[in-house]
Order: sequence, then C-alpha cells, then structure tokens
Amino acid sequence: MEINGVTIDNTYAEAFPTWICRIIITAVTQEWARKAATEATGFATSAIGCPCEAGIEQELEGMQTPDGRPGVSILICASKKKLKDQVVERLAECVLTAPTTAVFNGITTAEEKIAVKLHFFGDGYEYQKEVGGRKCWVIPIMNGEYVGEEEFGIVKGVAGGNFFVMGENQMAALVGAQAASDAIAKVNGVITSFPGGIVASGSKVGSLKYKFMKASTNEKYCPTLREKVPDSKIPAGVKAVYEIVIDGLDEKSVAAAMAAGIKAAVYVPGVKFISAGNFGGTLGPYKIELHKVL
Amino acid sequence: MEINGVTIDNTYAEAFPTWICRIIITAVTQEWARKAATEATGFATSAIGCPCEAGIEQELEGMQTPDGRPGVSILICASKKKLKDQVVERLAECVLTAPTTAVFNGITTAEEKIAVKLHFFGDGYEYQKEVGGRKCWVIPIMNGEYVGEEEFGIVKGVAGGNFFVMGENQMAALVGAQAASDAIAKVNGVITSFPGGIVASGSKVGSLKYKFMKASTNEKYCPTLREKVPDSKIPAGVKAVYEIVIDGLDEKSVAAAMAAGIKAAVYVPGVKFISAGNFGGTLGPYKIELHKVL
Amino acid sequence: MEINGVTIDNTYAEAFPTWICRIIITAVTQEWARKAATEATGFATSAIGCPCEAGIEQELEGMQTPDGRPGVSILICASKKKLKDQVVERLAECVLTAPTTAVFNGITTAEEKIAVKLHFFGDGYEYQKEVGGRKCWVIPIMNGEYVGEEEFGIVKGVAGGNFFVMGENQMAALVGAQAASDAIAKVNGVITSFPGGIVASGSKVGSLKYKFMKASTNEKYCPTLREKVPDSKIPAGVKAVYEIVIDGLDEKSVAAAMAAGIKAAVYVPGVKFISAGNFGGTLGPYKIELHKVL
Amino acid sequence: MEINGVTIDNTYAEAFPTWICRIIITAVTQEWARKAATEATGFATSAIGCPCEAGIEQELEGMQTPDGRPGVSILICASKKKLKDQVVERLAECVLTAPTTAVFNGITTAEEKIAVKLHFFGDGYEYQKEVGGRKCWVIPIMNGEYVGEEEFGIVKGVAGGNFFVMGENQMAALVGAQAASDAIAKVNGVITSFPGGIVASGSKVGSLKYKFMKASTNEKYCPTLREKVPDSKIPAGVKAVYEIVIDGLDEKSVAAAMAAGIKAAVYVPGVKFISAGNFGGTLGPYKIELHKVL
Repeated sequence: MEINGVTIDNTYAEAFPTWICRIIITAVTQEWARKAATEATGFATSAIGCPCEAGIEQELEGMQTPDGRPGVSILICASKKKLKDQVVERLAECVLTAPTTAVFNGITTAEEKIAVKLHFFGDGYEYQKEVGGRKCWVIPIMNGEYVGEEEFGIVKGVAGGNFFVMGENQMAALVGAQAASDAIAKVNGVITSFPGGIVASGSKVGSLKYKFMKASTNEKYCPTLREKVPDSKIPAGVKAVYEIVIDGLDEKSVAAAMAAGIKAAVYVPGVKFISAGNFGGTLGPYKIELHKVL
Repeated sequence: MEINGVTIDNTYAEAFPTWICRIIITAVTQEWARKAATEATGFATSAIGCPCEAGIEQELEGMQTPDGRPGVSILICASKKKLKDQVVERLAECVLTAPTTAVFNGITTAEEKIAVKLHFFGDGYEYQKEVGGRKCWVIPIMNGEYVGEEEFGIVKGVAGGNFFVMGENQMAALVGAQAASDAIAKVNGVITSFPGGIVASGSKVGSLKYKFMKASTNEKYCPTLREKVPDSKIPAGVKAVYEIVIDGLDEKSVAAAMAAGIKAAVYVPGVKFISAGNFGGTLGPYKIELHKVL
Repeated sequence: MEINGVTIDNTYAEAFPTWICRIIITAVTQEWARKAATEATGFATSAIGCPCEAGIEQELEGMQTPDGRPGVSILICASKKKLKDQVVERLAECVLTAPTTAVFNGITTAEEKIAVKLHFFGDGYEYQKEVGGRKCWVIPIMNGEYVGEEEFGIVKGVAGGNFFVMGENQMAALVGAQAASDAIAKVNGVITSFPGGIVASGSKVGSLKYKFMKASTNEKYCPTLREKVPDSKIPAGVKAVYEIVIDGLDEKSVAAAMAAGIKAAVYVPGVKFISAGNFGGTLGPYKIELHKVL
Repeated sequence: MEINGVTIDNTYAEAFPTWICRIIITAVTQEWARKAATEATGFATSAIGCPCEAGIEQELEGMQTPDGRPGVSILICASKKKLKDQVVERLAECVLTAPTTAVFNGITTAEEKIAVKLHFFGDGYEYQKEVGGRKCWVIPIMNGEYVGEEEFGIVKGVAGGNFFVMGENQMAALVGAQAASDAIAKVNGVITSFPGGIVASGSKVGSLKYKFMKASTNEKYCPTLREKVPDSKIPAGVKAVYEIVIDGLDEKSVAAAMAAGIKAAVYVPGVKFISAGNFGGTLGPYKIELHKVL
C-alpha cells in the first residue's frame, strides 16, 4: 500500500490496556492553562521509567468547560494502583500551584472514580461550592481562591498505539514525525506522551546483553546497525526512524490518531516508509493494523 | 524602601541548601533542545510532593556547547540521596528519547560527581567517542546515534530563594509575577521550578488542623482571609499575591535573580507591594534581605 | 444586561463594507505556514494608515486543504481598487519567498475573482499542474518548486465590528482583551487585524484641533481624560479600555465573533464593563447590537 | 574550506548600502513588545515589492531600556526618501495601537535624525515628559497613556548580506537554514527580514523572458533546473537551497551574522554546501568573503 508515494507496511501496532484519568484544567487564559498542564504532564513519557504516562489531549474553549473559562484537558495513564497517587501529586504540585487554575472531572460518565482530596490544603478555611453543576471545593490561596472538583472518573484505555516514520535522512524523518505529531494533537481522546510527541530511541523489552535492563535499544530498527545485525527491519535507503507512540481513551481513538498521523507524515518530502511496532502479539491484546485504519 | 512607587518590605527570604546537577542538552535546533528539557524538568515544582525540583536555566548558543550545536542547560535539585536516581530517569526517559539530543556535564569543576550510565541501553552496540574534549558514549538508536557524557558534577546550592508580588487585583499581580519570571529567566545559575515560574498557592510547613499534611495554605498571605485570620500579612488594598521561588547554584545567583525579578515586577501597573517568605530563621541558613540585594 | 457580573452596555457596533480575499497557505508543517502568514498579514492593522487590513483566520488540517498539507487561511481586506495589488505583493514577497509554501483560493464560490500572476517569476521555467482539483502554476525556485493557484475569489464583507473591554485597571482590561482575542481566533470567517488582536488606542474620525489628521484619539474613551472632557463615556471605576476590532466575511460571522469575545472577557476578574463603538450611524450600514448577539 | 565536513565555497556575498532606523519598543511584558514589533515589521521582506525591509533585532531587558521595562529593538531599512514615511506609519498603526507600548530612539549617537510626530494623535490633550532622560510625548489613549520619543537616529547601513544553505534534500536544507536563522537572531545589529529569517525563492535582478519583471527566479540556483540550464551552480547531490539575507547597521555586524549563521548550519545533518550570492560586483560596494569571516 502506498500514499503519496510512501510505502505503508502491511503490519500492525500492538497495544495494551492502561487506566486513564482525564482532567479538565481551566485558567484565566488558554496560555496559563497550558503552562499548568505542561508541568503536570512532564516527566511522564514512558511507564518504563516514569511514574506514569501523561500529556495534553486538547484545547477547550469557554463553552466547553464547566466554569466558562478556556482550558485544556489532560490524560494521565498508569496502572490502577499508581494512578490515584499520580493524579493527586500532579494536581497538588503542578496545577493547584499554578496561577488562576481550576480543575474538573473530564469523564463524568465513568463507572469508576478516584478521590483526590486537595481541600485539606485549605487547613480548615476551605468550603464547598457548586460551579457549572459540579460540586467543588474552594481553597483560599495567595492569588485568591482555587476551585476544583475532587472526584475524577477513570476508564480502561489503550496504551502503546504506534507507528514508525522512516526517512531518507534524519531531518526528513524528523519533520515527518513532527507533521504527524501536530496532526494527532487535533484528534480527541488521545495523547502522545514523549517530547514533542516523538520517540527517537524506540526500545525492545529487556536486553540481550545486560540482564538488569528492563528495556534496551531496538537494534533491528537502528539504521547505523543495518549491516551489523542479522535481521534488520530497516528498508534500503532509510537513514532514520522516529516512533510515534499514542495512548488513548479507547482503541477507536488510537486508530484515528494513527491514521491522522500517517496521512500527515507522508506529505513531508524524504519520508520513505511507514511501519509499526509489535512483538508478535505477546505484549498486548490490541492489534491495530495500518492498512485497516487508513 | 520604594522602587517606582512600589513598597519593598524590609524583610528577607529564607533559603536552604540543596544538591544540584547542571546538565547541558543540545539538539539540532534550539527548539528541540527546549522540548526535551521541558519534558525532563516537568513534574518538578516542589520537593514537598515531586521527586525533585527542576527547570531550564538558560539557552546556549553553539559556541557555548561541547558539540557546537544550540542547546539549553537545566538544573535538577534534590537531596543527595534522590538526585542521582532523578538525573538517571529524567535523562533516560525524557532526553535520550527526544529527537537529535546529546547531553553534557554542566559543571566540569565540581568536586563531586554522579555516574549516569545510560550506555547500557545500547545492549552492547554502544561505543566510546570524544566530543568537544568530553568522553562520551554513543548509543545506536532509531533516529541514528545518541551521544552523551555519563559523569555529571553536582554542587551544594541554594533552594527556596523567594519574593512575593502583591497587586491591587489578581491580574496586576499576575502580570507583575510574569514580568519577574521573564527577567529571572535571563539570569544565569538559577531556575524557577513552578509553572511559568510562578506560585499561586504558597504554603506553610505542616497544617494547624490536618496533622497528616506536610504543608498547607499560608493563611496569613491569603487575601480572602485578611479579615478572618488574626495576623494577616496582607497590606491594605492588596487583593492577590504571587510567590516567585528560585533555586540556584549559589547564594549570589539567587540574590541576583531576586533583584532582577523585583526590579521587573515594580514596572507593572497595579503591583503595590513586594515582600518575601521566611520562617523566622527556623527553615534554613540563608537569609537573603530584599533591601540588600536591590 | 449582565454576564458574570459584568455590565453589557445597551449599544451597537457600527461596521462598514470592505472587499475581502481569503487565501489558503499550506506548508510542510503548521509552523511554517503560520510564519509565512504572519509576515504576509503584517503592517495591516487599519486602513487608516496601512495599505490593507489582514490577519490569520484559522488553522487548517491536511484534510481541509487542496494539497493535503497543514496550513492556515488568511483574510486580506481593502477597497476593491487596492485589494488586488495588496494580494499580489503580499503573496509574492511574503509567501512565495517562505519555505515550502503553496497557496490556494480560499473562496471557490465567489462570483468575483482577481488574477494574481506570480508565475512570471518563473522566467519561462514555470509550468501548469493540477493539485487537488485546482489549476496551479509550478515555479522552480531555490528550495525546489513553489505551487500556487492564481485566481482568488473576493467577496464583499464587513469591517469594523468591535467591542470595548473596560477594566478596573490596565492589567485586568488587558487580560480580558486577550481572553476575548483568543476566543475570537477560534471563530471561522473573521480576523482581528491589530497586534495580538487588541487596540490600545481607539480613534475617532478626524481631529478637532489638527485639521490635517485623518484620525485622532477618541478622548471620550480615554480614562485619564475622564474629568477633563465634558461627555466622557468612561464609567465610574474604569481605568483602562481596549477595543477589539473584527473584520469578517459576513455580518453573521462578525456577530458570532463579538459574542465569543465578550463571553470570554467577562470571566477575567477586574473586567467591569463591555461597550461598543459607533458614530451614530454615520460611518457604516451595519449596526450590530451587543444585547442581540449575546 | 570545510567546517564539520561541509564545504564552504570560496566566494563572497555582495551587499549594498541602505538607510536604517533603529527603534526600541517596550511594553509591560516581553511578549507584548514582541507582538507589536512583529506587526510593525511585517510585510517588509524585500525592497523589491515591500515598502521597506524590517525585522526584530534583539530582545532587551529592563536594564537596557529607557523606561526600565522589557522590550525589543527593531530595524527599519529603506531608501532615505521612503524611510521616514515607513517609520511614521508603522509606529502609528502597529505600535501606538498595541497594548502598553512605548517607543524610544535606538541610535542616540546618529548624526542624522528623522522626526516622527505621533503626538498630533493626542488632539491637543498630549503633553511632554522626560522618561529615562529622553524627551517624550505622552498621548492619552484608551488603555491609559502612550509614551514615546519622536526623534529617531538613522544611519547608513548594509543590506543584502547573504549566504546559501544547500542540502542533500529539502528538509536538511530547511532545518540547516533554521539553525542559521536562530543563531543570527542572537547577533546584535542585524535582522533577517524574510519569514522565519529564510528565503526559499532567491531571485536575480530582472528577467530574461518577461521584461516587465523587476526580479525573477535565479535559475542557476534552482535544483530542479540543474540539468536544464547551461551553467547551474547547484553542486552534485544538492536538492534544495535556502538563502539567508541579512541587513545590519554596519559591515562588521553583517559579517558577524554570516559567520554565526554558517557555523550553526553546518551542524545540521544533510547540509552539504555553503555558498553566497553576488552579481560579479555590479550590485553593491560591499564584498563579504565567506572564508574571511569564518
């Protein structure tokens, strides 16, 4: 299969379940909501070494938020055990501390909820108030009053949706990956948790040589090792590969994001080949086929 | 003391020691170095609930970096015990994974060093190479080769330098705090770890009411509690307070940052009063007096 | 009428006709399309002293553009006599010169069209090609090939839609105006041509004192002259006013933008009063009433 | 000559004189100064079709500006005849109209000055005031008071300093040009007036085929015409060329900018060749040799 002259590999992305909490952060301007969200979703690229995976899902206009102010929604993804703690600490340290913010539950229909009791920070001066039909706590703070809900829906979502952008050189692959990441940023229900939405050093599970490593370089996809490893997956003429990794609220959203990203990458000159990462079905139950989503 | 009609309180900021690692991140463009650095320094506002405090210190031109490429330097601040682990995980998950990055030791003169052995990720394909006089490891990855030093100097620095920007209303205080934060961003040797460099909800140690809380709202500095607490520190006419918190390589840098920030804030119309936070000398050994630094 | 405690004046914005050309600019990434568009729409705030009024209308995803690449649409507004020349020069100097750009007609249904013959730049090496169903010229240039349509629809639109954001001080009014401008940026069919979408120095036609001036300060809306002019329009307690000026493809779009902007501004603390500018019906045929659009 | 494996052509950039006005724009934050400056320097890429060439020279901290606020300096370049009119209109329409701005003379030592009488906008309510030792006019406007000097030094500077970044494909050349443009942005005394600081469609004077054209594509530097024109200047393996054009206050600044830009571009993988544009010495008196500046 080819789009705009770029070969789309006949393969699939292997993805696996994760628990996800969606949080709406509003502020006096879009910019301040984004600053809080950026801090709150930092150090959260991969569950391998970060305490969670997180990112900004979308921008919200005033008419889309409970308090009428502009905002962003974020997704925080982790095992059920870790998720509550991560939501508590990231809201407490990175959003409650940010200028003019308020937070709201982003999945009101979720069957399961976690309690995030920030109101104890009020040391007794806190009180309850309804905002936009939501039951909130108001905490007196230095810049006035912080307002926030304290129950957040969580759902079982999909982590590790992915595809590879391969280019005739590094800059072609990089701009291709950037175009893909930009396109995915406009798809609802998903995040790309890595810096700029792009992974430069995709990994395999474990290590052949260093047994203490949980993950190591995926040598079959390293262009400089093409002639050195027996079963390189690097097509002829490819000099650089970037992986786009997507977490989302459900398989459909992840598939839509993969489609949007691939369709964007193929218009960047020098992008040669699109593939996806899987482990022969051993990692996760979701198999998202490239040819099917496109 | 007054500057541009704004009263500068005759008080001091109380600061305390912290261990700091300074890391140079370079990339193909300034923008990509910044994206990696932003992710690597996220979820790192306050040691109270984050695993470390971290931020971007400054932009670096090609002539200032070992490999001739543009970059940024970041500071990661934590107890000596936690620092190494945080540097390892943040570089491994947020910088090694980012497009085109390289990392270098940012304090070559430090007496103490930490080893950050990312090269095991190479699974045996890694090799050593000198770059700009630095002994680096090269790791084959998907986008080509990652290059990085693995020994990073650490020094005993200063955390918790601070001042308060008080305004006649919230927006005046906010823009005042933003002008301060922008000015501090140009001072070398320091970071402001909170979102946008600004704290909206400054805290006191512990809680009067909830004994399980490590920190709680600093009610004496809450404008909405001015009439409700016996010893409010909110001057008449002040409706909002933002705290600027500064970590730096030494007391001199922190003092310079405080001076630069205050001198910027006082030019924003509606900023009324500048003060600073201290705990009567019980928290830390550094007392940075506002009148002295200005 | 009040929204969120802010008084909405019972008045109307007076607007007038203008000719408008809508142009789609695409590029290899959203960012490069935006850079070209920013340059092409600069020095274009007000027809009083600029050769046209212009701005970015909206971001476009690949699926919304003829060549499948990301882009932005811009509006260029001027008298029919000046419009063609402005479109030619701005595309020739600011878009054809920008990396990786292509341009397409943004109003295919328009009855009137202007010809913008950039292909002569090709000096005989240019050729024709169909892209996404559009008849384009391809011009060999240094970075490869430029692609563009050369016929652009123009329509009679509406200029000068406006409202005033009045605040208890300058920073409250400024952030209120910024929130309004951000909200309007998401409305289709309109632009705000001033820096950041905001006017700090709204004018009246002509001058009472200096007869050679085409426009001068609108002293009735100057807060510092409130006690000095006989019929000041500044309500008690208002210390700063910003005007948001909107040009759009039709009256409906301009009205929608006014509504979106006002609804955003009223959530910024310290915004006190919303009004609009008119000249008693002497300037233009459109009267857009604030209470009606909200 | 080679730097980092990239060939530097043994040639020179040919530049010519221009008159330049340097203006300092300050505002309540750096961001607002930048927004005003961006609008004021738009539609100003090339004197061929724009009324002037203009751009942002550098960011200024509060301690570098007459009123203690953050700002930017801009350069406006044109013939002496056109320069005054362009400065007047661009300050009147794009800076006086922008939130919280003030303007100051950026070359106090210049022998020649132009008068820019914006104060008539005050319609008699304006008055004089000294700010930071500068004689300013204060004009009551909607957002409070505008402050500005009205005499601006002009000097004879240098326009058209340039070099070419040639890449093995378009994306390599583009990122190389971007790295160059970023580096030049940190050099004082110069601007790059094109979108993002980069020219995609460098031209030659006149046209061989269309006699009415003032400029047309420089076919010798068009990669797609390499086999079609007799004396192509495109080296083997080069698929895209970007030109960086620099205007500056003097030859030394332009040379420094060329050096900084070239040294940055050569670190981008896929950049192959650096050259420069000249017309055999027929265009201008300045010959800036690449090997000499490096």
